[in-house]
Amino acid sequence: MATLRTQVAIIGAGPSGLLLGQLLHRHGIDNVIVERSAAEHVAARIRAGVIEQTTIELLDEAGVGARMHREGLPHEGFDLAFLGRHLRIDLPGLTDGKHVMVYGQTEITRDLMEARQAAGLPSFYSAANVSLHDIDGNAPSLRFTDAEGRAQELHCDFIAGCDGYHGASRASIQADRLRSFERLYPFGWLGILADVAPVSHELIYANSERGFALASMRSSTRSRYYVQVGAEEKVEQWSDAAFWDELRRRLPPETAAKVQTGPSIEKSIAPLRSFVAEPMRFGRLFLAGDAAHIVPPTGAKGLNLAASDVRYLSRALVEHYRERSDVGIDRYSERCLRRVWKAERFSWWFTSLMHRFPEPGGFGQRIQEAELSYLEGSVAAQTALAENYVGLPFEA
Amino acid sequence: MATLRTQVAIIGAGPSGLLLGQLLHRHGIDNVIVERSAAEHVAARIRAGVIEQTTIELLDEAGVGARMHREGLPHEGFDLAFLGRHLRIDLPGLTDGKHVMVYGQTEITRDLMEARQAAGLPSFYSAANVSLHDIDGNAPSLRFTDAEGRAQELHCDFIAGCDGYHGASRASIQADRLRSFERLYPFGWLGILADVAPVSHELIYANSERGFALASMRSSTRSRYYVQVGAEEKVEQWSDAAFWDELRRRLPPETAAKVQTGPSIEKSIAPLRSFVAEPMRFGRLFLAGDAAHIVPPTGAKGLNLAASDVRYLSRALVEHYRERSDVGIDRYSERCLRRVWKAERFSWWFTSLMHRFPEPGGFGQRIQEAELSYLEGSVAAQTALAENYVGLPFEA
Repeated sequence: MATLRTQVAIIGAGPSGLLLGQLLHRHGIDNVIVERSAAEHVAARIRAGVIEQTTIELLDEAGVGARMHREGLPHEGFDLAFLGRHLRIDLPGLTDGKHVMVYGQTEITRDLMEARQAAGLPSFYSAANVSLHDIDGNAPSLRFTDAEGRAQELHCDFIAGCDGYHGASRASIQADRLRSFERLYPFGWLGILADVAPVSHELIYANSERGFALASMRSSTRSRYYVQVGAEEKVEQWSDAAFWDELRRRLPPETAAKVQTGPSIEKSIAPLRSFVAEPMRFGRLFLAGDAAHIVPPTGAKGLNLAASDVRYLSRALVEHYRERSDVGIDRYSERCLRRVWKAERFSWWFTSLMHRFPEPGGFGQRIQEAELSYLEGSVAAQTALAENYVGLPFEA
Repeated sequence: MATLRTQVAIIGAGPSGLLLGQLLHRHGIDNVIVERSAAEHVAARIRAGVIEQTTIELLDEAGVGARMHREGLPHEGFDLAFLGRHLRIDLPGLTDGKHVMVYGQTEITRDLMEARQAAGLPSFYSAANVSLHDIDGNAPSLRFTDAEGRAQELHCDFIAGCDGYHGASRASIQADRLRSFERLYPFGWLGILADVAPVSHELIYANSERGFALASMRSSTRSRYYVQVGAEEKVEQWSDAAFWDELRRRLPPETAAKVQTGPSIEKSIAPLRSFVAEPMRFGRLFLAGDAAHIVPPTGAKGLNLAASDVRYLSRALVEHYRERSDVGIDRYSERCLRRVWKAERFSWWFTSLMHRFPEPGGFGQRIQEAELSYLEGSVAAQTALAENYVGLPFEA
């Protein structure tokens, strides 16, 4: 068995793990990434695309913001379409100048992978059988089989579990040390990626009688569209043509008429779920991002919440190594969870506001319509939406 | 059978019917009130006690505001207590100077009854077997048996159904002409009225681990307290001593220590329910107040919503008689319902925020805690709460 040593072992080469590695590296903290999938697979994943100001700042801090600033699309608002009406949310006007950026997670991952490679930082892709050891002692380690089939043991001071909902990190915690919270939604999002110009330069969230639809994009030539579908539906049931037809039925007529269609580059159904595991630290193991929490995609909080965890974790580790203070480590879970739950609340609320729910009687539907009508007439309610959308401020 | 004639027949002598009668009278429109209960019973009913600015203005318009302005308590804020913390909502600070008034519904009813009597307006109390006739034609009428046992027929131009949830008005509509919306809550409010000084000069809404509690008052010497109880509990199970003990356990400790106790003048359990019937007009019958909608008491919207219906209805009838315009009549249902649903949404939301709900898993509880924490830190969210609490502006 080959034996290695680092300061921070990072499980997972998604944006959380890669971003954490880059931030630690810039503060002179050694780290090794161990990732189950092949690098090409990681680089090709299609995920979210709306990033908050604080995430932009963190990418800049990690030194990987240049292409994002060049190619990303700053968005100063978005549209809600409902009941034959529409309401634009003016982000800077409602939040003292804040905005969001449309820049695909795929691009962020690529920028981070390139930066990591350029810096010569060690990463093990295609690592099998990853296991965590001694997280409660002073000498934790990871064991895994590398891409060449060799058994590896990685000794470290800390383990960062950035390996997503299905990863080894949370799974290695005894059930009685974890409390999980979950809410399932009776629908999923059928998404399509296509190289056609987006129908609008801003996002349109549509609550139609046929269900929710989202007109989004990854760039000025690549569109990302979604429609709400039943939880039990299969992507094979949806031809591209059927998708475009359904999308057009759910968008406002004047918008629908302008939708450019084309062959799908990617097409998939994602279930909608809210999930939180508490706490987020176990001895020398820290969970970050999807390993600890999942939000439904409405409002695009997933990547931003992962970045928020990474921000707290990188600062905690820098404090530990540079200032010999463990305050950040001890408060990691509590600080993250305060922010996580606010984002969970917002994502749940925005999902509840914009989707159609099966329900007998229709009370919930009327409440939804009343909330949308209230939102139309209330600057305060619009401000609450906008300040959550651009990202709540970090607390001390 | 004795035959009478009036312009507007009003069923129900609660605050809606009495207020409508007074407003119509001041515009020279004849009206007769027919009420199932005895006058003493109506005058003794214990109901809500927080009134909005627009309700205050309507009582002034009806000429019955003098005692309210003298004896009512203007409230410029209230407290939310939760998770060992508390948050004061500064009403004028958040809403450009608006406030609410604490003045019992019992007092409003008395003021209205006295004004009606002083004006010599006809009212039939203890009227039995009230039935509605020909509401879809041009000559509607009411039939009933008066307190002396005589059959009466009251011919009119319009009928105002102000007779509450269990009244004859809505019950006289064929089921297929009505659409009802309902949400039941798995709890009720056990309330106590006692002649002791209130524990605080402002209302305290407390979300405690043991359930919701509300410290309220009717005057500086009369307190009104509530605790959330199971939907199946009976008032006979609750001694005064048990109530006071439970109340103190749910209020913040420093507040609980100051609670003055005394014998209950009134003690009852009210179930919590949201209910709306659509539409609110059927030919020449108008439903108003509880006859058309019920809100849970959190946030005290019931009486204010009834006043809002009466405002629309009185203006519609004045337009009809004075300006020969039926625009107000034709738009009555739609105008009322827009405001009703916003108040239903607020009452549902405030109820959901402050009560403990039975649920497996605890996701909803964490979302509630996150919303309370978010509210603490967001002026926008506090403003949204405050602007609903003081009453949303009337639309055109």
